[in-house]
Amino acid sequence: MSLLAAPLERVIAELGKLPSVGRKTAQRLAFHLLQAPADEVRDLAQALLDLKDRIKVCEECFNYAEEERCPVCQDARRDRSVICVVEEAVNLVSFERTGSYRGLYHVLGGALSPLRDIGPGDIRAQELLDRAGREELTEVILATNPNVEGEATAVYLARMLQPTGVKVSRLAQGLPAGGDLEFTDDLTLQRAFEGRREY
Amino acid sequence: MSLLAAPLERVIAELGKLPSVGRKTAQRLAFHLLQAPADEVRDLAQALLDLKDRIKVCEECFNYAEEERCPVCQDARRDRSVICVVEEAVNLVSFERTGSYRGLYHVLGGALSPLRDIGPGDIRAQELLDRAGREELTEVILATNPNVEGEATAVYLARMLQPTGVKVSRLAQGLPAGGDLEFTDDLTLQRAFEGRREY
Repeated sequence: MSLLAAPLERVIAELGKLPSVGRKTAQRLAFHLLQAPADEVRDLAQALLDLKDRIKVCEECFNYAEEERCPVCQDARRDRSVICVVEEAVNLVSFERTGSYRGLYHVLGGALSPLRDIGPGDIRAQELLDRAGREELTEVILATNPNVEGEATAVYLARMLQPTGVKVSRLAQGLPAGGDLEFTDDLTLQRAFEGRREY
Repeated sequence: MSLLAAPLERVIAELGKLPSVGRKTAQRLAFHLLQAPADEVRDLAQALLDLKDRIKVCEECFNYAEEERCPVCQDARRDRSVICVVEEAVNLVSFERTGSYRGLYHVLGGALSPLRDIGPGDIRAQELLDRAGREELTEVILATNPNVEGEATAVYLARMLQPTGVKVSRLAQGLPAGGDLEFTDDLTLQRAFEGRREY
């Protein structure tokens, strides 16, 4: 028999399924919610229910959306001639936070990975090619992750887009801002060398 | 205009209200939930709704309970002659985890704090006195926190219980298991000296 009341145990178990939420954290959150105003807990529960019921995928860029098109694609002020290709919708948030990109996005929904058996058919590569053919593009920026799978995906997409004649670029790799040369790994250092620019 | 769909923003905002969950963590959890099976999200939401609707306070020890009495108080195998007094219901979990305590509990719901204007009337002190008069007790263990407020509360409760004649004890203070003398603070060291026991 558990020493905690069953509804409390259930919340702890459910919260514990979230990434990076262990038993102790789940317990702390559950006890917090017990003491929180009932409205706050109901709001959270309702928001969670709405999440699954009301979220769709943007039919243009495959970002998460409440309507047919996501807030970015709906925004008339965005530059529709540039597409930034990201692996996941969550990556888009990071770019938006910088405030310096005003084009559109394309969410692949993953990266190529022979090891995990993810091929071109499993990511939205064809959809990107379709968009490149349909829209008046000046540039496609490949913003997949700077790891093996992201690099492979970028190479694949660059080749795939070549026949369309659109300019394809890749995010710069090099030293992170505020980084320290002493603690920079070899590969980053090598890429910083390769990508050096004239003053 | 936010770049995230409104239902997603709402989940992030609601999750961000939880203790030690910042914007970034809330965002990561929300994107995880978006990709999680719908059932899992519904289960979490339902567990949260049930939490507020179905959790009561045990009428005996004031632990959280689903029925009139909490699982501990209902357990016939517990030793009903000992009461361990804790500040919050969450503390009870720690004691239960040790598996070495088989008595009952009493949840005060806080500690005395003149600074935060919390007096004896704001914690369940009278209720403890009532229990001490009603039940056949051999011992009351004061397990409030080893800080200023917890100590003050323990001293207050010990004096309050004196007329009842019941044995009142306080948790031992000293070196934590696996601790290092070099890094032990002065007060802990002092208490470890005071509380030393003969071999």
